[in-house]
Amino acid sequence: MTVLPRATPFDVAPWEIPLTPGQHVLIQFGIVVAAFALAAMALRMHAARREVGDRYRPAVHAAAAAVSVAFLSYALLFLELRSGYRFEDGMWRPGAEAAGTWAARFMDWTVSVPLLVIELIAVSALAGAAARRARAVGIAAGAGMAILGFLGAVVVGGGRSYPALLGFGLASAVCFVVLYAVIIATVLKSLPVLPAAARGPLTAAMVVLVVSWFAYPVVFGLQGLVSSGAVTTFSQVLLSATDLVAKVGFGLLVLRVARIRTAADVLAGEDVHPEGIWIDQLRQSDGVLPDGPPGALSRD
Amino acid sequence: MTVLPRATPFDVAPWEIPLTPGQHVLIQFGIVVAAFALAAMALRMHAARREVGDRYRPAVHAAAAAVSVAFLSYALLFLELRSGYRFEDGMWRPGAEAAGTWAARFMDWTVSVPLLVIELIAVSALAGAAARRARAVGIAAGAGMAILGFLGAVVVGGGRSYPALLGFGLASAVCFVVLYAVIIATVLKSLPVLPAAARGPLTAAMVVLVVSWFAYPVVFGLQGLVSSGAVTTFSQVLLSATDLVAKVGFGLLVLRVARIRTAADVLAGEDVHPEGIWIDQLRQSDGVLPDGPPGALSRD
Amino acid sequence: MTVLPRATPFDVAPWEIPLTPGQHVLIQFGIVVAAFALAAMALRMHAARREVGDRYRPAVHAAAAAVSVAFLSYALLFLELRSGYRFEDGMWRPGAEAAGTWAARFMDWTVSVPLLVIELIAVSALAGAAARRARAVGIAAGAGMAILGFLGAVVVGGGRSYPALLGFGLASAVCFVVLYAVIIATVLKSLPVLPAAARGPLTAAMVVLVVSWFAYPVVFGLQGLVSSGAVTTFSQVLLSATDLVAKVGFGLLVLRVARIRTAADVLAGEDVHPEGIWIDQLRQSDGVLPDGPPGALSRD
Amino acid sequence: MTVLPRATPFDVAPWEIPLTPGQHVLIQFGIVVAAFALAAMALRMHAARREVGDRYRPAVHAAAAAVSVAFLSYALLFLELRSGYRFEDGMWRPGAEAAGTWAARFMDWTVSVPLLVIELIAVSALAGAAARRARAVGIAAGAGMAILGFLGAVVVGGGRSYPALLGFGLASAVCFVVLYAVIIATVLKSLPVLPAAARGPLTAAMVVLVVSWFAYPVVFGLQGLVSSGAVTTFSQVLLSATDLVAKVGFGLLVLRVARIRTAADVLAGEDVHPEGIWIDQLRQSDGVLPDGPPGALSRD
Amino acid sequence: MTVLPRATPFDVAPWEIPLTPGQHVLIQFGIVVAAFALAAMALRMHAARREVGDRYRPAVHAAAAAVSVAFLSYALLFLELRSGYRFEDGMWRPGAEAAGTWAARFMDWTVSVPLLVIELIAVSALAGAAARRARAVGIAAGAGMAILGFLGAVVVGGGRSYPALLGFGLASAVCFVVLYAVIIATVLKSLPVLPAAARGPLTAAMVVLVVSWFAYPVVFGLQGLVSSGAVTTFSQVLLSATDLVAKVGFGLLVLRVARIRTAADVLAGEDVHPEGIWIDQLRQSDGVLPDGPPGALSRD
Repeated sequence: MTVLPRATPFDVAPWEIPLTPGQHVLIQFGIVVAAFALAAMALRMHAARREVGDRYRPAVHAAAAAVSVAFLSYALLFLELRSGYRFEDGMWRPGAEAAGTWAARFMDWTVSVPLLVIELIAVSALAGAAARRARAVGIAAGAGMAILGFLGAVVVGGGRSYPALLGFGLASAVCFVVLYAVIIATVLKSLPVLPAAARGPLTAAMVVLVVSWFAYPVVFGLQGLVSSGAVTTFSQVLLSATDLVAKVGFGLLVLRVARIRTAADVLAGEDVHPEGIWIDQLRQSDGVLPDGPPGALSRD
Repeated sequence: MTVLPRATPFDVAPWEIPLTPGQHVLIQFGIVVAAFALAAMALRMHAARREVGDRYRPAVHAAAAAVSVAFLSYALLFLELRSGYRFEDGMWRPGAEAAGTWAARFMDWTVSVPLLVIELIAVSALAGAAARRARAVGIAAGAGMAILGFLGAVVVGGGRSYPALLGFGLASAVCFVVLYAVIIATVLKSLPVLPAAARGPLTAAMVVLVVSWFAYPVVFGLQGLVSSGAVTTFSQVLLSATDLVAKVGFGLLVLRVARIRTAADVLAGEDVHPEGIWIDQLRQSDGVLPDGPPGALSRD
Repeated sequence: MTVLPRATPFDVAPWEIPLTPGQHVLIQFGIVVAAFALAAMALRMHAARREVGDRYRPAVHAAAAAVSVAFLSYALLFLELRSGYRFEDGMWRPGAEAAGTWAARFMDWTVSVPLLVIELIAVSALAGAAARRARAVGIAAGAGMAILGFLGAVVVGGGRSYPALLGFGLASAVCFVVLYAVIIATVLKSLPVLPAAARGPLTAAMVVLVVSWFAYPVVFGLQGLVSSGAVTTFSQVLLSATDLVAKVGFGLLVLRVARIRTAADVLAGEDVHPEGIWIDQLRQSDGVLPDGPPGALSRD
Repeated sequence: MTVLPRATPFDVAPWEIPLTPGQHVLIQFGIVVAAFALAAMALRMHAARREVGDRYRPAVHAAAAAVSVAFLSYALLFLELRSGYRFEDGMWRPGAEAAGTWAARFMDWTVSVPLLVIELIAVSALAGAAARRARAVGIAAGAGMAILGFLGAVVVGGGRSYPALLGFGLASAVCFVVLYAVIIATVLKSLPVLPAAARGPLTAAMVVLVVSWFAYPVVFGLQGLVSSGAVTTFSQVLLSATDLVAKVGFGLLVLRVARIRTAADVLAGEDVHPEGIWIDQLRQSDGVLPDGPPGALSRD
Repeated sequence: MTVLPRATPFDVAPWEIPLTPGQHVLIQFGIVVAAFALAAMALRMHAARREVGDRYRPAVHAAAAAVSVAFLSYALLFLELRSGYRFEDGMWRPGAEAAGTWAARFMDWTVSVPLLVIELIAVSALAGAAARRARAVGIAAGAGMAILGFLGAVVVGGGRSYPALLGFGLASAVCFVVLYAVIIATVLKSLPVLPAAARGPLTAAMVVLVVSWFAYPVVFGLQGLVSSGAVTTFSQVLLSATDLVAKVGFGLLVLRVARIRTAADVLAGEDVHPEGIWIDQLRQSDGVLPDGPPGALSRD
């Protein structure tokens, strides 16, 4: 581990600044707490597969994948934090691997942001070709946003180049806008069609994404403006909190929509489910098994 | 690993004191035994998902998550103990990473205490909006208690500041009181409504939480009063024992309530369950499958 | 890793003696083979949950937990063996962490011995309050035996104190006797009541425990009497073999009892099971599903 | 870790060239993102086992295995990248273990390419002996291609021998051609027989394989022609992207074929499935349970 | 890690010989490819539990355990290879831990060979006491073969003693012969009784075991005869290939027998199975559910 000393505060990347013990343990707190919450959510979503119908299950698959990938990325962040900093003369001093505490987040987003889009569309009112179209655009915009951000913030110029931050930041922002358009349009189109009980959680899910994701451009912008241990700490803790809200909170809301819609399908005779569905101990639907002979449920 | 020598016993954090081999192995014993018990409980709760009805299953999901997160945190504690202390001249001497043997516990509580509240409410008589309200308050108070405790005991002043301990300790205590109010009120409201057989274990679950959690302020207070290897060892072993009781014992009691209530729902024709429910080899209910056509179980 | 040289053979703990390459690889063989067998058994017991009725499933849960915890403890033993010994001048020489090759076993027993008691009671004829009572006594005696043994053999006097070995050994022996009484009484009370086919494996399970556990006092006693690389190796290999027999062999016998009793319950119309139960390719019972409406199986 | 300096650019293997920080982090990005996507897909395929009929489930088993193995190999690649390069004088300099960043890919392909062939055949129209024949040829050609490539690119001459690259490359190319023949013939034979809805995704799956696998000979050829940090980076990122597309994208298409065919079998009364099958929220078939007595579905 | 130089080629164990880079990477290739294939098979067998009837499921449990244990042992082999050899002066030079690359294989066989015997017997025509007898003999002979081989090849004389190799080798060979007798007798007794379709794969399973296991005495004998890097490499690669064939190939054949026999039982009204069984897309049996009331399937 080579410790990289830097002269002026405007010439360092956020991961090249020594941290006080308090700053260091706060960053670690954010990473570990987010990892724990993501692990809890991964277990929840794993079990949720049986609790929604086949129709909305792709949302649960995507949510399980998103939080599992995010958990892995937080395990990686933890590893980078431990191997990237060394305690010396009362401060935690960064080495060559400290860049990983920044880079690992972009690797996560490249995979998990598209998965969040899949989650949302899978419980929306979009079906068939419309769903496929929205999904394709959302996946491309989500992955593009993360990859372009990564190139600007970490790769080109080693995270210390204003032109790179600006250029890739603008390109990334275009993807960001497209992503917001897909999310908001999907939800707005769905609200009038969905069962009344599902509208509240779907709207909340959209708001959670749209609001919490603003943390990304804020941190991205901070990188080009100021640099100090406090800013690095603030950025890291904010990003951990954002990932927690945008993955765990969002996932629970999407799951609620999926369960309310499954219950509505059972009540409407559109689908079967082997057990009753209860939300907050209030029954939404009874268990219904398919009949023996083929074609038991009418198709039309 | 830098070994930090400290002059007077009133000027050190609990994790900055050298330990005798006996103290060190006792702390390790507490950590590993708690980890093993939590792992055993995580497996039990994973399997319990099929053993209760959909109505009470959120309790099992929360319990599975709580013990899994606690297991991860004990794995982290084990790692911190091993990388944080070095054997030299007959004593285990702490380095910069020894603070992790204290900090990792707060990271755990920030996630697991809210999960324990969710567990309890999910088997109580609270439903719908009342459940959501109690849950929101309990989650906020639980996470707040842990985060404020963390700031006072570890972050501000490096765990050696009386004002920090006092100030954050008092703020944390407010959350503590709110949390107790939520827990006790939830149980007291539920007891008259629940099936008779469920009242014993629910009361016991409440008592387990309310009594065992007193260990937290005790250890928190000790940090500001005395410091020696014996106190550090006592604190660590007490906290491991508390986590074991408050997560494993509590979880088993909540599971018992959930199974008794599921059986009561089956007997009342309120829900179905694909197999009989037995407790201590005494049958509580028979297996009942839903009928084929929708609406087989009456709703009213 | 500090290598601890000791003067006389009566003044060293078993984990403070250098080992020849042959002794070292034999100890490793015992640890790894036991770990592999426990892993195999953990998978078996995980799958067994669906293969017994709800009535006896607590036995399977306890068995799964016992072997999983034991597997974790053998992984820990492996880690301690590797980090605790260093090859130098043709011998493997112990360092400060070699004590872990002894201590980790007590950590395992503190959790797994109570789980073995739960296993046995859950397939016995004890039910309701009688089962709860026997379980409470057995758990306390089992955990007490392990904790007291740990204090005498490892903590007090660093494993080199005759008074500690003697005092804690006697206290531990009292728990040992209580444990045997619980186990034997449970089995003897059960044999007349159980289906004939279940009596053989239940008796065998008892014998396996009662005989194999004698290894524990033998090794405990050896520690105070003789010390050499051969004795350390003998003790380690014996303990690995004992754990293997008392957890894997015992667990398979308990599982057989649980399956025979489930089949007997199905034949008696006491319970349902979704598939036939076969033992050594001989059919014990057919698959039986519950009926649709509540109360399909008579209760009396 | 020994750093291997080499004289001329034509005398080094791709893993023997120092990398700039930007190149190094780009390679790591490719590896970690592919690993995350493969982990997400492994979870998806694990859950998919219940979502297709027994007839096409071998495709899901093969896909789950392929992405799980690929995930393990990317974990290994990550390990090799970290232990194989050391940061010194502003560059990441390769040591003896850097060869693993190349070798681990061939180890993956030796197992995963045959699994991809099994996947495709299991949803094709080939059945019985024809399926077994195609599978045997495809497995042999796939494993042969990877092993021969490994011998030429890594083993013989240490990756720096033109004759080895040429000789083994040609032998590997023969397997490559056979593999393409099996894949294309399988799909072309199947298209006329399959349900119309399944033809699109099956064709797309074939195209994905046939196009993306061209990356392998391209990278293999580059090794013999040019060598620089940029080429190494390009090769690594291209291979990660290829594995991602050829395993994740391909697997999702194969799963879609399997689900469409399962639904078609249910509609035709050829098979049962316990729940409805929906694709993009459009219902493909209803849930159908088998009848009680044997022979409920006609065999003819 | 101490590098052990040895004078003459007849005085070294196979793991004490320096390896060229090509030899080292070939050994690693064999280990990692076998590990990947075993991981794939462990996933396959885990899922197979639902795909065969309760009668033959012990074969699947044993197969899942055998490949999982073998996977763990290959992970251990990988670890030993990495910590046991160090690159120096153009060669990989062995240290004290290199013996583990040989010893870990015997640890695996001690557990996995008995499991393979259980697998075979569980799908054979042996039932009841005959099955228990054959199983007991097979387990004892399998474990004995591995333990005696381990003592002769690794423990006694440090793997460099002709008398040890010869003496323990002969004792191990006796077990080997008994094992072959059990396997061949079991299969020959079963062939006339089994459904015709199951005879092919059962015979093939036997042949796979009987032929591939010849690699063990070959490698064992080589150890006493010649020693060079090429021989060590040949032995390691051969053993990896053997384990792959004897565990993965054998397991797939046993699974095929178990599925064909389950289908035959369903057709004969001897057992039920909740879904149809298909092999290579050809239907073997339909799904059949048990009836509601007890005793639905006739027993006689």
